[in-house]
Amino acid sequence: MTKNMFIYETPKDILIVDCGIGFPDEEMLGVDLVIPDISYLKNKKDKIRGIIISHGHEDHFGALPFLLPQLPKVPVFASKLALAIAERKLKENRIKADLRLIDRKRTLKLGDFEIDFIQVTHSVPEAQHMFIKTPHGNIYHGSDFKFDWTPIDKTKIEVEKMVKASERGVDLMLSDCLRSEREGYTDSEQALIEIFEREIAKAKGRFIVTTMSSNISRLKTAIDVSRASGRKIALVGRSIIEIVKIGRRLGYLNLPKEDEVNLRKVDNYPDDKITLLVAGSQAQSGSSLDRIASQTHHNIKIKPKDFVVFSTDYIPGNESSIQTAIDLLMRQGAQVSYMDISEDLHVSGHGARGDLALLINLVKPKFLLPIGGGFRQMKQYSLLAQRIGYQENKILLPSSGDVIEVDQGKASITGRFEARDVMVDGLGVGDVGNVVLRDREILSREGVVSAVVMLDKNKMQTIEEPEVLSRGFVYGQIKDGKEILSLAQKEISRIVNGARKGISTRDLKVAIQDSLEKFFYSTTGRRPMVLLTIIEA
Amino acid sequence: MTKNMFIYETPKDILIVDCGIGFPDEEMLGVDLVIPDISYLKNKKDKIRGIIISHGHEDHFGALPFLLPQLPKVPVFASKLALAIAERKLKENRIKADLRLIDRKRTLKLGDFEIDFIQVTHSVPEAQHMFIKTPHGNIYHGSDFKFDWTPIDKTKIEVEKMVKASERGVDLMLSDCLRSEREGYTDSEQALIEIFEREIAKAKGRFIVTTMSSNISRLKTAIDVSRASGRKIALVGRSIIEIVKIGRRLGYLNLPKEDEVNLRKVDNYPDDKITLLVAGSQAQSGSSLDRIASQTHHNIKIKPKDFVVFSTDYIPGNESSIQTAIDLLMRQGAQVSYMDISEDLHVSGHGARGDLALLINLVKPKFLLPIGGGFRQMKQYSLLAQRIGYQENKILLPSSGDVIEVDQGKASITGRFEARDVMVDGLGVGDVGNVVLRDREILSREGVVSAVVMLDKNKMQTIEEPEVLSRGFVYGQIKDGKEILSLAQKEISRIVNGARKGISTRDLKVAIQDSLEKFFYSTTGRRPMVLLTIIEA
Repeated sequence: MTKNMFIYETPKDILIVDCGIGFPDEEMLGVDLVIPDISYLKNKKDKIRGIIISHGHEDHFGALPFLLPQLPKVPVFASKLALAIAERKLKENRIKADLRLIDRKRTLKLGDFEIDFIQVTHSVPEAQHMFIKTPHGNIYHGSDFKFDWTPIDKTKIEVEKMVKASERGVDLMLSDCLRSEREGYTDSEQALIEIFEREIAKAKGRFIVTTMSSNISRLKTAIDVSRASGRKIALVGRSIIEIVKIGRRLGYLNLPKEDEVNLRKVDNYPDDKITLLVAGSQAQSGSSLDRIASQTHHNIKIKPKDFVVFSTDYIPGNESSIQTAIDLLMRQGAQVSYMDISEDLHVSGHGARGDLALLINLVKPKFLLPIGGGFRQMKQYSLLAQRIGYQENKILLPSSGDVIEVDQGKASITGRFEARDVMVDGLGVGDVGNVVLRDREILSREGVVSAVVMLDKNKMQTIEEPEVLSRGFVYGQIKDGKEILSLAQKEISRIVNGARKGISTRDLKVAIQDSLEKFFYSTTGRRPMVLLTIIEA
Repeated sequence: MTKNMFIYETPKDILIVDCGIGFPDEEMLGVDLVIPDISYLKNKKDKIRGIIISHGHEDHFGALPFLLPQLPKVPVFASKLALAIAERKLKENRIKADLRLIDRKRTLKLGDFEIDFIQVTHSVPEAQHMFIKTPHGNIYHGSDFKFDWTPIDKTKIEVEKMVKASERGVDLMLSDCLRSEREGYTDSEQALIEIFEREIAKAKGRFIVTTMSSNISRLKTAIDVSRASGRKIALVGRSIIEIVKIGRRLGYLNLPKEDEVNLRKVDNYPDDKITLLVAGSQAQSGSSLDRIASQTHHNIKIKPKDFVVFSTDYIPGNESSIQTAIDLLMRQGAQVSYMDISEDLHVSGHGARGDLALLINLVKPKFLLPIGGGFRQMKQYSLLAQRIGYQENKILLPSSGDVIEVDQGKASITGRFEARDVMVDGLGVGDVGNVVLRDREILSREGVVSAVVMLDKNKMQTIEEPEVLSRGFVYGQIKDGKEILSLAQKEISRIVNGARKGISTRDLKVAIQDSLEKFFYSTTGRRPMVLLTIIEA
């Protein structure tokens, strides 16, 4: 999941497309979220004419609560569904915003930009591409999509508008590339109906489904198939409850009140008449699925005939947690259908090479720019485009922060500004930087020792025994741990008492720090972080 | 990778099979390795007749250096190759051992146990199964294997001995189950020859191969194919250098001195005449591959025409690191062949369902016990055995530490002893426990604050400003960070000065600790670990 944000700029005006969050990578210890760095916009706020949200996924709108306060007068444009989802998020954070509904049938004019919207299919309804006309050239903004001709939500892909864009001339096309490593076309979401029918037929007890909460189409399939087989549905987890509420209101989900069961009343029904829709398909720590698996969920305990379906794919980095959760569910007696034994439990919302090639051939842009993937997926997209007939220099593979200039039918990378990962940790936005992360990394591996030395500077002696505490280093209650810390006290006294006369406190501090670090490494093979305080009396 | 160790016990004697290490899971912060818990053997050392190593992989022999010192007189039996690999490891750690070569043609008698060895194929030569005759029943110990009829190392699988075991009667068979989630048979290692020929033909510059260093057959293929196409070979990384040395000595690798190039002389040759065999295929931090990708390797810098092949699979938990390494290599201009674009760059050393079913049908044991996998793979093995015709109660699915009794033709789980994960961290073995890990987890997310308070207990006042330091919490050099720490100083003084007269130091400490924790959470949303020292003057 990448924190999507694209800035389109003319001398007069700025248009922003998407404002998403990213998940921290494994080196960002303790970080909750990553948001885009908008320092580039600092002195340009008056130029910003609007933010358009392409569709209702967190990696495309989730940073609004963090960034809108810095861009207070900027209107946010989105489809009905995306607007509803974003609005809920903003309300939660008590952020006021100027939210405006996009009328897909009309051209949206924002300063120098004239934007036409093109409906596409993805894993959430109302996903849109944009044709952006500017005085300097025309852009096709092809965010997340696949060509699903039989989508659950009956969306018609506006292929004709893609051709129209091509006729008007597209200088540069940005295109989703996340699935460019895969040959062929991505399956239709409709394929899941048969799969869910097959799986539910195996369930002798409760049918438990976990999937990405944002995937409204998948939830619809799980609900429809469950109702058709006479099951009531219980919603487990806040994100599922919230999205189902919105999906119902906008008509994307049909779940009559009489078919929904409160979580606490699930046991009033026979197990084979119950479906649970559970949030946390990536086994995120603290999610409903994680708590059910680790037997800490208040309402749901696994029973021997429970049948659990993971209708999801591994997001890189989550494999171990998901596999641990599967093991735990199975140990409690549940039967589990998951990706390693059935590859068909999930279809992606992103187009494979076939879909990507089709978009290129419909839009026929002069230049290409893959987005939404890592460098390896950008590279595969580039190789695909070259096989289609593009010259390599017509495909731009920028890094985050690169500036691309489009003018007179040409596009190229012309510069860059510094775009950091802005990390959100607790209430802090951007106050966790590399120094803090590096310290956390050391603390996580080696632990910490705090040493307090009271110094009689005249006599150059320690006044009392130095106080030495540790956490995450050695266990202080066991013999070895205690011994190491008391040896460390002696080591400190040895250094102080052996120090030359007139040594500065600063130099003495360095000497103690050094010798403690060496002492711990030679006795334990570890390098705990040493926090040393010297008090002169 | 599981830390394999199996204890077979009669009233008189004990036989141990394998003595391996495991990798720490993601919650074991800072832990280097995990080794088996042998506290069960504590008062039984005199009964132990020997340790048999099934094959030369770390998860089967790697704990010897840690555990042999506690079992000093116990002989270790292994094949020539496994013995050579284990011996090197023991020498590195300066551990003396009674190492004995297995003669596969003879029955090995160790107290109550009579062991016959059955050669099988795996991703390292000389892998063996064991038929273990005991006074209480016969065991077939089927550690890691697949049925590779055309192995690189020309091993013949001793199928006839499997049938022989069946004729003698097998009460319980332990069987590798790691790949029980896959249908069909695992491919032969030989398949890689064609794949490497295909890949090397694409390489216009250096051909860079990374694979598990322990996979001698894969190294042989890489070397043979490279030499056939006129390339010299350079070895990158200690584990590769060591294993190639052993492989050469025992005749498993044919790499004449004149075809090997020293790493520092690689640039004396044209790029298209060079192959690099690089250790660190899982992008382990600090490995040669990791350093090459992150541009910190002293000798190897990526060049635009370099062609890198990842001949490996993701080990769960390593996906992000591997993908980051691939991105970095590509950004530097290398072409990279990897698992997400070509599934055929690696074949497993473990049998799929076909192999597993074949072994069951050859050995025809009464009871089955899947080993070497997580619970989900054990469960799939059980389902496979049930499809073959076994009743569910003939398949044992124990947890680590469970005791299985075999007698009079029956096998069942009859008890358990506590088998912890013994963690190795630096020089410490077993001194990192759950308390230390829990502290490291908190430190890794939230950081640490050390506060030192000097107290005049009579006046109940702080003598000087409290000293407050932090690491991994907020960055102390920026305005907000500094401010929070100086506000924390004031908070401490407020608590001390407001404390009731006659309060005990202990109660005062609790009050300061509580109020600091609340203060940090309310101002930052974080809960750093607070190390508080009170000094009474």
